[in-house]
Amino acid sequence: MQTSQDALSATFAALSDPTRRAILSRLSAGEASVQELAVPFDMTLPAVSKHLKVLEKANLIRRGRTAQWRPCYLEAAPLKQASNWIGEYRKFWEASFDRLDEYLKVLQADGTKAKKKGEKKGKRK
Amino acid sequence: MQTSQDALSATFAALSDPTRRAILSRLSAGEASVQELAVPFDMTLPAVSKHLKVLEKANLIRRGRTAQWRPCYLEAAPLKQASNWIGEYRKFWEASFDRLDEYLKVLQADGTKAKKKGEKKGKRK
Repeated sequence: MQTSQDALSATFAALSDPTRRAILSRLSAGEASVQELAVPFDMTLPAVSKHLKVLEKANLIRRGRTAQWRPCYLEAAPLKQASNWIGEYRKFWEASFDRLDEYLKVLQADGTKAKKKGEKKGKRK
Repeated sequence: MQTSQDALSATFAALSDPTRRAILSRLSAGEASVQELAVPFDMTLPAVSKHLKVLEKANLIRRGRTAQWRPCYLEAAPLKQASNWIGEYRKFWEASFDRLDEYLKVLQADGTKAKKKGEKKGKRK
């Protein structure tokens, strides 16, 4: 239990940085070397490496073992766990959007009534 | 874009702590005061307050404005954004589970073959 809790914490912590999310997005298009990953982010190699270490520790990527060129690959399994955890709250956000929808309908109905009232007043003049 | 990126970072950062996830889970059962939240976690009020501040900043909870008793409520909308972001990777984890499934089938088939071979050898003896 503790381990899976920690894995979930590591996944969410890894996802809490926009650069790391962008790296995952890039890797979803295919494997890439650290050098290739550094280009679009305009970052130094050590800075990219630091982000990759966080992602690797969270098992969100794995690195190839070729000596010269160690490509990075996306590992999506931890994202499934994260998605499952968040999914437990689906009914709450759906409920809040339903409430918002109802509220908008009430606003719209009030607006229509007010408009009709205004038109009637206009006719009376 | 930057704002929604930051909101997503704040959501994931808030979710990266098991106590904060447990607080959200508790609030999914209904509103609670800081005092009530502190009990099951065996934490001091300032420690719980610190976690609540992180959750509140990420808009994952809101606090009532009653002077004496400020109950906390779950706000699930940011979880929808997080779920949408992770959902973009669904095909990858589904693919990796499919591969695992295939691999297990191969292992199982090999095991059955090896077993049959073993049985044949046994009969020959």
